[in-house]
Amino acid sequence: DDCAVVAPSAGNAFAVTTDTLIEGRHFLPTLDALKLGRRVVNVNFSDLAAMGAAPRYALLSLTLPQIDEDWVSRFSEGLWSVLDAYGVELIGGNTTKGPLSIAMTAFGELPPEAALKRSGARAGDELWVSGPLGDAGWAMYALTAAKFEATPEQIARYECPEARVALGIALRGVATSCIDISDGLLSEAKHLATASNVSIEIDIAAIPTGLRHVSRQSTWSAAKALSPFTADTDATSVLMGHLGQHCLLSTGDAYELLFAAPREQHDAVASILKCESLPGACIGRVTTPDAANPVRVLDAESRVMDIEVKGWDHFA
Amino acid sequence: DDCAVVAPSAGNAFAVTTDTLIEGRHFLPTLDALKLGRRVVNVNFSDLAAMGAAPRYALLSLTLPQIDEDWVSRFSEGLWSVLDAYGVELIGGNTTKGPLSIAMTAFGELPPEAALKRSGARAGDELWVSGPLGDAGWAMYALTAAKFEATPEQIARYECPEARVALGIALRGVATSCIDISDGLLSEAKHLATASNVSIEIDIAAIPTGLRHVSRQSTWSAAKALSPFTADTDATSVLMGHLGQHCLLSTGDAYELLFAAPREQHDAVASILKCESLPGACIGRVTTPDAANPVRVLDAESRVMDIEVKGWDHFA
Repeated sequence: DDCAVVAPSAGNAFAVTTDTLIEGRHFLPTLDALKLGRRVVNVNFSDLAAMGAAPRYALLSLTLPQIDEDWVSRFSEGLWSVLDAYGVELIGGNTTKGPLSIAMTAFGELPPEAALKRSGARAGDELWVSGPLGDAGWAMYALTAAKFEATPEQIARYECPEARVALGIALRGVATSCIDISDGLLSEAKHLATASNVSIEIDIAAIPTGLRHVSRQSTWSAAKALSPFTADTDATSVLMGHLGQHCLLSTGDAYELLFAAPREQHDAVASILKCESLPGACIGRVTTPDAANPVRVLDAESRVMDIEVKGWDHFA
Repeated sequence: DDCAVVAPSAGNAFAVTTDTLIEGRHFLPTLDALKLGRRVVNVNFSDLAAMGAAPRYALLSLTLPQIDEDWVSRFSEGLWSVLDAYGVELIGGNTTKGPLSIAMTAFGELPPEAALKRSGARAGDELWVSGPLGDAGWAMYALTAAKFEATPEQIARYECPEARVALGIALRGVATSCIDISDGLLSEAKHLATASNVSIEIDIAAIPTGLRHVSRQSTWSAAKALSPFTADTDATSVLMGHLGQHCLLSTGDAYELLFAAPREQHDAVASILKCESLPGACIGRVTTPDAANPVRVLDAESRVMDIEVKGWDHFA
C-alpha cells in the first residue's frame, strides 16, 4: 500500500524521530556495511531511548550509488539484527539512486505522561551519564589520522554505538530530564540547561572514559598528526591532554544518555545502571540558572575551567 | 526533545509514508526552490491521499551542499505554503551537509477500517483516474531536451503536482482500492491488479490527457531530440505518437489517483470528481485474473494493444 497504517496501543503515544546518515559526514567510507546497518538503527533508537520510548516501527529511505548485492546483503543483515533484537517492524521506505545516504524514521511507544523531556531538570538534581565518553571521538580521530592509536573497544564504540533503550525505559518516573549525547557532552548539557531553565555543573574527573589510559600511550608522531585540532605544540603530554579533553567534552558519536534525577533517587539510578551492566556515573549537578554560564566544568579541585561550549556545526 | 510525542485522535490510526527526493533524479537542478518545497510535501501527501488519510504531521531531513539563505528561505516558503494549507505540523527533522536531497515522512490520520488499500479491487469494478496523465512526463522530456515544446500547464503539472487529498478522503467507503500514479499508469495498475488478484483493462482513448493537442504541434527537430526514447525514426507523427503513448502510459510524476469502484457507485464517483473540480474519468474495468496479462490496454476499437508493462527502475 502507499502507506502503513499503525496506531499505538491503548493509553500510549508514539515517540517519533528521524535521522539521516551521509557517507563521509556521519560515517567513514571504509565502514563495513554490516556495521553501518547496525549503526543506522542504533542512532535512531538512541533518540527513542532518550525519551524513554520502546522501539516499535521503522521506515527506511536508502540512497545508493549502485546496487552492490553483497553490500546490500551485509547492510540488511546489520539492520535486521538490531530491528529483530527489539522486535521492530520495518513498515515502509524506498530505495533510490544517488550518493550514499540513509534516512530512517523510528517510532517508539510510551505513555505520553512518562516521556523523558529535556525541560524537566530542577536545581538540586544530580547529573548522570550512562557510560564512557570521549572514546568514540578518539577512535574517529585515530581512524582518520592513521598513525594514531585507539583500542578495539574504542573503535567499536565509534562504529557501532548501542542505543540505551532498556535504560531509557527504566528511567521513566525516575529521571527528571534526559537527552542522548550525539553531538558532544557540553552542547547536549547546554540543551538540557536551556530547556529546563537551569545551569549545569560537571566534574570533569567524574566522567567515565577510557581516554586516560590511551592518552598516555600516544606518541609524538600521533601528536603531530593531530596538530590541526589544537594550538598547543609544546609537548606530547600537553597536546594529547588537550585532544583528550576535547574528545571527552565536545566530540559526538557517544550515544550515551545524559540525564538528571533527584538526589533521593541516587541509589535507584545506581541500581538501574548496575542492572543494565552500564558503567555510568554521577558526573555533576543541576543548579539555579546563571544565563552567562549555562554549563560550568569543574576541575579535580572544583575550580571552574575556562572552556567554551560549542555545539556541533552541521556545516563546518 | 529527542522525539516528538504524537497520538492519533480516538478511533483513528496513523497512515505513514516516507519519500526521498534527490536532485537530478527526482527533480531537475533548475527547479526553483519554492516549487521544490511545494513538491516535497505534495509527493508525500499524495501517498496519504491514496490511502484516504488526512495529513496531520511531517518530519523533514534536509541535506544541503551549503547554506544559501535565499534558497532556504524560498524552499521554506514553498514547504510551509502546503503544510499550512492542510494545517500540518512539522514535528521534527534535521539538516545536514551533503549532496542536495530531501527526505520527508508524513503522517495522516484515518479510521483504520476506512483505509483505501491496493488489495480491494473486485472483478466488475470500474477503473478511474482523477485527472490528466502524460502531461507531466511530456514536460519532463521537454525541459530536458530543450528544443521540445510543452505548455505552461504541463510544466506546472510536472514541477508542482498537487496531492489529491480531499478526493482520497471523499473516496472512503466508495472506492474499493486506490493507488497514486507516481511511477506511470501501467505499472501502478499492475500493482493494483497483483494486490487484488484481478486483471485490469484500460481503454487508451478514455484516458484524460493534454497530450493529443501538443503532439500535433511538435516538429521534426523535437522528434530527433527524442530519438533515444523510441526505436522509430520514420516520421514525426509516428515518433511523437510513440512518445505520447509512452508518456500517457508509462512516465511518472502525475500524482493523480488511480482507483476502482463498483459500477453502482458510478454516479457517486462522478459527482465527487465534479465537486472537487477534477477532470477525472472512468478509464476501464476490473476483470477476473489472467496471470499472463494483469493489465491489458485496449485501443479505440477495443483491440488489445501489444504493450509491455514496465515499472520504474530506480537504478536505470
